[in-house]
Amino acid sequence: MELEPRNPFASPRFGQIATFMLLPAVSSPAGLDVALIGVPYDGGTSYRPGARFGPRAVREQSSLIRTWNPVLKVHPFQRLRVADCGDIDVVPISIERTFEVITAKMNEVVAAGAMPLAVGGDHSVTLPILRSVARRHGPLGIVHFDAHPDTWDEYFGSKFFHGTPFRRGVEEGLIDPRRMIQVGIRGPLYGPEDFAFHDQHGIEVIRIEAVKEQGTAWVAERFRRLEGGPVYCSFDIDAVDPAFAPGTGTPEVGGLTSYEALVLVRALAELNIVGADVVEVAPQWDGPGQVTALMAANLMFELVSVMALRR
Amino acid sequence: MELEPRNPFASPRFGQIATFMLLPAVSSPAGLDVALIGVPYDGGTSYRPGARFGPRAVREQSSLIRTWNPVLKVHPFQRLRVADCGDIDVVPISIERTFEVITAKMNEVVAAGAMPLAVGGDHSVTLPILRSVARRHGPLGIVHFDAHPDTWDEYFGSKFFHGTPFRRGVEEGLIDPRRMIQVGIRGPLYGPEDFAFHDQHGIEVIRIEAVKEQGTAWVAERFRRLEGGPVYCSFDIDAVDPAFAPGTGTPEVGGLTSYEALVLVRALAELNIVGADVVEVAPQWDGPGQVTALMAANLMFELVSVMALRR
Amino acid sequence: MELEPRNPFASPRFGQIATFMLLPAVSSPAGLDVALIGVPYDGGTSYRPGARFGPRAVREQSSLIRTWNPVLKVHPFQRLRVADCGDIDVVPISIERTFEVITAKMNEVVAAGAMPLAVGGDHSVTLPILRSVARRHGPLGIVHFDAHPDTWDEYFGSKFFHGTPFRRGVEEGLIDPRRMIQVGIRGPLYGPEDFAFHDQHGIEVIRIEAVKEQGTAWVAERFRRLEGGPVYCSFDIDAVDPAFAPGTGTPEVGGLTSYEALVLVRALAELNIVGADVVEVAPQWDGPGQVTALMAANLMFELVSVMALRR
Amino acid sequence: MELEPRNPFASPRFGQIATFMLLPAVSSPAGLDVALIGVPYDGGTSYRPGARFGPRAVREQSSLIRTWNPVLKVHPFQRLRVADCGDIDVVPISIERTFEVITAKMNEVVAAGAMPLAVGGDHSVTLPILRSVARRHGPLGIVHFDAHPDTWDEYFGSKFFHGTPFRRGVEEGLIDPRRMIQVGIRGPLYGPEDFAFHDQHGIEVIRIEAVKEQGTAWVAERFRRLEGGPVYCSFDIDAVDPAFAPGTGTPEVGGLTSYEALVLVRALAELNIVGADVVEVAPQWDGPGQVTALMAANLMFELVSVMALRR
Amino acid sequence: MELEPRNPFASPRFGQIATFMLLPAVSSPAGLDVALIGVPYDGGTSYRPGARFGPRAVREQSSLIRTWNPVLKVHPFQRLRVADCGDIDVVPISIERTFEVITAKMNEVVAAGAMPLAVGGDHSVTLPILRSVARRHGPLGIVHFDAHPDTWDEYFGSKFFHGTPFRRGVEEGLIDPRRMIQVGIRGPLYGPEDFAFHDQHGIEVIRIEAVKEQGTAWVAERFRRLEGGPVYCSFDIDAVDPAFAPGTGTPEVGGLTSYEALVLVRALAELNIVGADVVEVAPQWDGPGQVTALMAANLMFELVSVMALRR
Amino acid sequence: MELEPRNPFASPRFGQIATFMLLPAVSSPAGLDVALIGVPYDGGTSYRPGARFGPRAVREQSSLIRTWNPVLKVHPFQRLRVADCGDIDVVPISIERTFEVITAKMNEVVAAGAMPLAVGGDHSVTLPILRSVARRHGPLGIVHFDAHPDTWDEYFGSKFFHGTPFRRGVEEGLIDPRRMIQVGIRGPLYGPEDFAFHDQHGIEVIRIEAVKEQGTAWVAERFRRLEGGPVYCSFDIDAVDPAFAPGTGTPEVGGLTSYEALVLVRALAELNIVGADVVEVAPQWDGPGQVTALMAANLMFELVSVMALRR
Repeated sequence: MELEPRNPFASPRFGQIATFMLLPAVSSPAGLDVALIGVPYDGGTSYRPGARFGPRAVREQSSLIRTWNPVLKVHPFQRLRVADCGDIDVVPISIERTFEVITAKMNEVVAAGAMPLAVGGDHSVTLPILRSVARRHGPLGIVHFDAHPDTWDEYFGSKFFHGTPFRRGVEEGLIDPRRMIQVGIRGPLYGPEDFAFHDQHGIEVIRIEAVKEQGTAWVAERFRRLEGGPVYCSFDIDAVDPAFAPGTGTPEVGGLTSYEALVLVRALAELNIVGADVVEVAPQWDGPGQVTALMAANLMFELVSVMALRR
Repeated sequence: MELEPRNPFASPRFGQIATFMLLPAVSSPAGLDVALIGVPYDGGTSYRPGARFGPRAVREQSSLIRTWNPVLKVHPFQRLRVADCGDIDVVPISIERTFEVITAKMNEVVAAGAMPLAVGGDHSVTLPILRSVARRHGPLGIVHFDAHPDTWDEYFGSKFFHGTPFRRGVEEGLIDPRRMIQVGIRGPLYGPEDFAFHDQHGIEVIRIEAVKEQGTAWVAERFRRLEGGPVYCSFDIDAVDPAFAPGTGTPEVGGLTSYEALVLVRALAELNIVGADVVEVAPQWDGPGQVTALMAANLMFELVSVMALRR
Repeated sequence: MELEPRNPFASPRFGQIATFMLLPAVSSPAGLDVALIGVPYDGGTSYRPGARFGPRAVREQSSLIRTWNPVLKVHPFQRLRVADCGDIDVVPISIERTFEVITAKMNEVVAAGAMPLAVGGDHSVTLPILRSVARRHGPLGIVHFDAHPDTWDEYFGSKFFHGTPFRRGVEEGLIDPRRMIQVGIRGPLYGPEDFAFHDQHGIEVIRIEAVKEQGTAWVAERFRRLEGGPVYCSFDIDAVDPAFAPGTGTPEVGGLTSYEALVLVRALAELNIVGADVVEVAPQWDGPGQVTALMAANLMFELVSVMALRR
Repeated sequence: MELEPRNPFASPRFGQIATFMLLPAVSSPAGLDVALIGVPYDGGTSYRPGARFGPRAVREQSSLIRTWNPVLKVHPFQRLRVADCGDIDVVPISIERTFEVITAKMNEVVAAGAMPLAVGGDHSVTLPILRSVARRHGPLGIVHFDAHPDTWDEYFGSKFFHGTPFRRGVEEGLIDPRRMIQVGIRGPLYGPEDFAFHDQHGIEVIRIEAVKEQGTAWVAERFRRLEGGPVYCSFDIDAVDPAFAPGTGTPEVGGLTSYEALVLVRALAELNIVGADVVEVAPQWDGPGQVTALMAANLMFELVSVMALRR
Repeated sequence: MELEPRNPFASPRFGQIATFMLLPAVSSPAGLDVALIGVPYDGGTSYRPGARFGPRAVREQSSLIRTWNPVLKVHPFQRLRVADCGDIDVVPISIERTFEVITAKMNEVVAAGAMPLAVGGDHSVTLPILRSVARRHGPLGIVHFDAHPDTWDEYFGSKFFHGTPFRRGVEEGLIDPRRMIQVGIRGPLYGPEDFAFHDQHGIEVIRIEAVKEQGTAWVAERFRRLEGGPVYCSFDIDAVDPAFAPGTGTPEVGGLTSYEALVLVRALAELNIVGADVVEVAPQWDGPGQVTALMAANLMFELVSVMALRR
Repeated sequence: MELEPRNPFASPRFGQIATFMLLPAVSSPAGLDVALIGVPYDGGTSYRPGARFGPRAVREQSSLIRTWNPVLKVHPFQRLRVADCGDIDVVPISIERTFEVITAKMNEVVAAGAMPLAVGGDHSVTLPILRSVARRHGPLGIVHFDAHPDTWDEYFGSKFFHGTPFRRGVEEGLIDPRRMIQVGIRGPLYGPEDFAFHDQHGIEVIRIEAVKEQGTAWVAERFRRLEGGPVYCSFDIDAVDPAFAPGTGTPEVGGLTSYEALVLVRALAELNIVGADVVEVAPQWDGPGQVTALMAANLMFELVSVMALRR
């Protein structure tokens, strides 16, 4: 089976069943280099729900993606076997059982030798993905784009919700915190103690002020220290300013522009990316233009391009 | 403290902090006849989430409600002490713990001698309310407006979600099923076995075809057999057609008109209503006119009017 | 100058500068039988503003109107000279001065021998129109479609806002209250005293319950007693249920269907209609389909058809 | 391969790649009884474009459809082999070439012994479908739900656009006009001559007034005369009132309610339906609740139920 | 009474009656350091109305605000007593009487020793606030963020509308024009004479070109000359580009980004801010993400943080 | 006839029939310097249709435009005779015949000595405009703002659609490719061969990276080499980022900000602009604020200002 995107000059892009980037849908990750996979769970959301519709929305808007990356100068779908693996059948009523099925499915992906490129769902789904990826690669370097640190300890007594995955990931040994960089952090918080965990574990925080004042080239330079070992990239769409990505659960004003986001993801090209996700796209909070899902689709394309460059 | 609605000829209806029907906000149900109370939980939703924003949306749109019911010819806020008791602090991440806090709060309401008039939230929240109300009144008669029977047994292995409250209510002895009537049922289902529970327990189902063909007066007549004992009314907004109430989690076409819904709620006037809820308003699926929340606010007004007539 | 609508088989309906029903724009009512005219004032609104954009929205949506009325079997634009007279230049900051310019402009229309068919704007604009029309025809019969009686006395100390035009009209002798019928009245009010003015002056109120229970044919029969003398028709779009007309300032659930509204306006065919308005279209509260403005455009077409039948 | 819908109690309905009614996607109609197929062409639209996104929108909203029809008492997917055949690759820039590919694809469907159940696209696509279906069955009886007669002769010199398919169908001998019934016709037209073609060919028109005044049972009775021979059902969503279906290209107020539409489609149960379509769903003109696509999905379910009853 | 914001880890942020930043609602400004107060008047608007719903929209979106400002490194609600004082009961039908009630209420606030932080409403409401604040502090320095100079002389013969408050403020001696700076000015105007008043009185205008070309640090430096004396900050949300703040009455493209706006408000930290407002949020012109109200809520948080730094 | 914009201090900007920038509507370009003209054709669109409603949407939003350009310091409507010439009556069903009528109409404009300033419609309409303009001026220099090169060869076998106008223009000799500059190009493409045509003909491409990294002043400098000969400016609104212009057919993230777009159009002031267009505004994909049409209206104002500076 060839894994080429549908040809938009023969099959209109607005037609056919919507898959990620017009790629074929497959029932198994066997033989793939990159498995595009949806994780429609939003039970970990603390404010606006709706990220359960994220995978479908990103599929729909990804129809506009073409096949060549003119900046990175790569044809990712020629270098890599990439397909749409559908969604994981999450358990809407239970975060614990959802985590189990996510890890089980991602174990399959990883076992098949494929890199997962997941679309959330809320940010809680990153933790069970990390469990699978780290099982194969050991403690992971992390590039984490987000407005929020997501290293809180608990929420209403639960250790799991969309504000805790990275604390859990460090605690569980899935993440090497000295190889973790957060980008885009901003907005009111609860206190300076929100970064105590970072200080304790050596997590680097690149606040939005640094991005804006030092520039994206400076940030890209910071990423270089992660070269070598395996790196997972988790992109919370709320890293991007709500003007560019209003369709999300906990928007924070004053964020990255779409251009900055693209440049920063392309800056991962020198790293050994072994998996990635784009999360927190909640399409019903966006307007009719669905620019948030379109943004997410383009981030996926940049991520798969980055993965392709390493082949 | 007087419990009069704000005067819209002195304080514009679009102004001030939005409370239910321009009524005062109170911190305790003590001294109230009717406690208006929000239950912003939507973790039991099987399709479109968002009913967590239902209480706020209904408060906002209820600013249009005036104080006299010209059909039932009653001034409910003159006859009853009614106020906005705020929302219950649900636990977004756990349906079980949410049920506990709902029941705890509703026990307070009932203990204070007040009738609860709750705004959801998804339909799962009705069960913990019934636990409180039935504790005081014994097994309850039920008038249940809905497109769906909500008597399924479980969902992904959980006994609790928005499709099971009435089965659980019968099983727990909170509901007297022979005094339970469902109105507005319609839409594709899983099979005739979806009504086996009804047959077994004697629950009456008035499908939408009966409403449309026999008329609302005929339905009202059916309600008369519930006279005497305590009756709880649960109104799932999806009983109303999506043209009149698009802002909901599992819309079903072919439903009640807004006029029919109002007439049928007014038809409860002869019953001994001891509590009620309006659930499944999910405002982000509605348009800018927010007609769903407006519909819900009017149903609340009719329900409180019905309650007032019994004084 | 011929006053034919643009031919949609030669000039696409979605194109050109939007005028009412694709009719020519004229700078003066001279020579017209019916003057279509916008009154973009919404300073008299008590809740949701925005009716100032009503005339433009109705123009836009009226592009779908064709030229023959298949129910009334009339070609109104062949029988009558009808054109788009633009909008009145209201004074946004002053209701009193706005009333002056409306009356001044409408006096011109009436003096030219044309019947005004106005598009609001909020309902306050009906009063200055009545001043012009009654100056020519004497006290007018009224068919008033609305959810609200609009016979309140004042608002924050002002005699003029969108809730008072019909009380003022009676007081000023513009309306013969015994020849006034209100249709569609519903929704919570302030008390039975809201109809004291009606009782005192002999205004007939056909509540929504009467329309729904007696039927539109019965209502049409009630209109017959207005035959003979001059009749003005004022149609507040909120007479129609918010499902069919969400784009309005003070929506009330439980109203007329679109079909009922059309039938009832056609029922004016036996009356001597000398002027009319359609008010309270506030398009930003409608969805992208703009069904409210479309409804209003169709009501205008039925009104001009009714006017044409008398020629 | 089994053709069962996805189980929503094991795989959440909001997840996975959206296919029609959670059914499997197939690449060929071979072995099917009913082929669900999208036709995303809207180049024949005279007003609001966008029906090219109709198939995707209906797929998305059809996730809410369950598997048993409680009114017709049939499990259509147990009786019939039904699957999602994807979309036809239309040619956006040419109506003539689009017609060719539609007919070619539909010929395959018909040759495979399957009945087509198509989702538009604008109404122009019905003509090339009729060419395929009539090739097998001979001149077809037609039940045509629509606000408009769609029997105009041409548009800007073209014989093909969304206002001409039924005139062309009669002229080409695909339709037996004496076995053709139109339901729901209404709205301003160009003149009585718009029905000259009907009179000449014996097409029956059931205007909206007849539906509302005589009732749906009377209309159902009219359908009975089509029993026996093959019948094709074409459902233009604008037959339904814009309150229930705002997302369409040429909305007309005063139409069918959702309930009436469902009842009338179920009334086809005694007919020999050999193919059907639901057209003119243009989702970007709908609100966030997407009630138009939901309506269309339910009409599809009723149509496939009707087809199942004949087995 | 403690004035702490609600704890979002115990009470979900989407729940409860919406107050500004989850703070308590109080009925009097007595004892407060900062009085958050809504002014829902939009009768002074020259284009899109709707700012009357601004206070409610900002309350709703402010639920996302947390309690610590990580850039200014301050816990404003620990340093200052801040609460939601509700809205002023404006007079929708009269700008003159509205001004009277605003000044009366603000006099109370100021007399209680509290600083007003008001949410409009259109920009006309700033004038009556200035009357109160200047009565206590004498002629005020002003930092005025806006796309428009708002120093026109009159509108349709009225001295008061949303384009005149700063001319009136200078004329009435409330403003010291040599200590007034306007930031963000742009867009087509009527002529160079639009700045004659500025030249005459020494008002400094920092056009958008200066912000973009010189940078925010340069602008911050300009603010330093206002140090010492009392300064009032008026932030018209249309200073921000419509991509970041579409929900406003007279949007102008080419404006501040959200990041620039935040930085510039933080740059007031060295000034003696004695009052502030955020105006012209008109939520119905925004999309479902309500990013405009969210932006305004964040500006309020920065303003209260700036006020806190001076304690 | 004077060609002054309506005075917004005497006639509210939200009122009257919407023409471009409140200018008079004229039936002929005779005597004009600049003809504002709509071209409501979108049959050449490959993804989201709807640009047929672009001219009306831009007219509506252009009501906010005032008359003086404070950056270029010019009163364009005092220097030039400018009016709204209405729309061209395109042929929705045929791109070939549409091109004929466009060229015919534009020939009239050019023959009258007026410069066309057109509003699309999709980008295909630029080709027939170029045919007219080049007939008068010879091969044109081009400044082309766009996300896409629009130099593809064909689409589904057609030489004409919105992705080919500039290849056709070069082939037909309408464009001098060595005097053509494209600005804003970005997004995934099909391969490096997408720029083979540029290399072959000497078309300069200024990708978005160059704009962002070199700055707008650098780009402006690049434009200088076009001084002297006639230049046509074609502005595809998707050159601007979807945050600032979501209402378009093929949005690409990572684009120009609104400020950059304005600056770059002003940078044409030294060129001999002989015609221009703003295309691909598709308003139904925008939110209620209609910022895309507002952006387009402002670009028109800058273009007409640039034209005025040459007089």
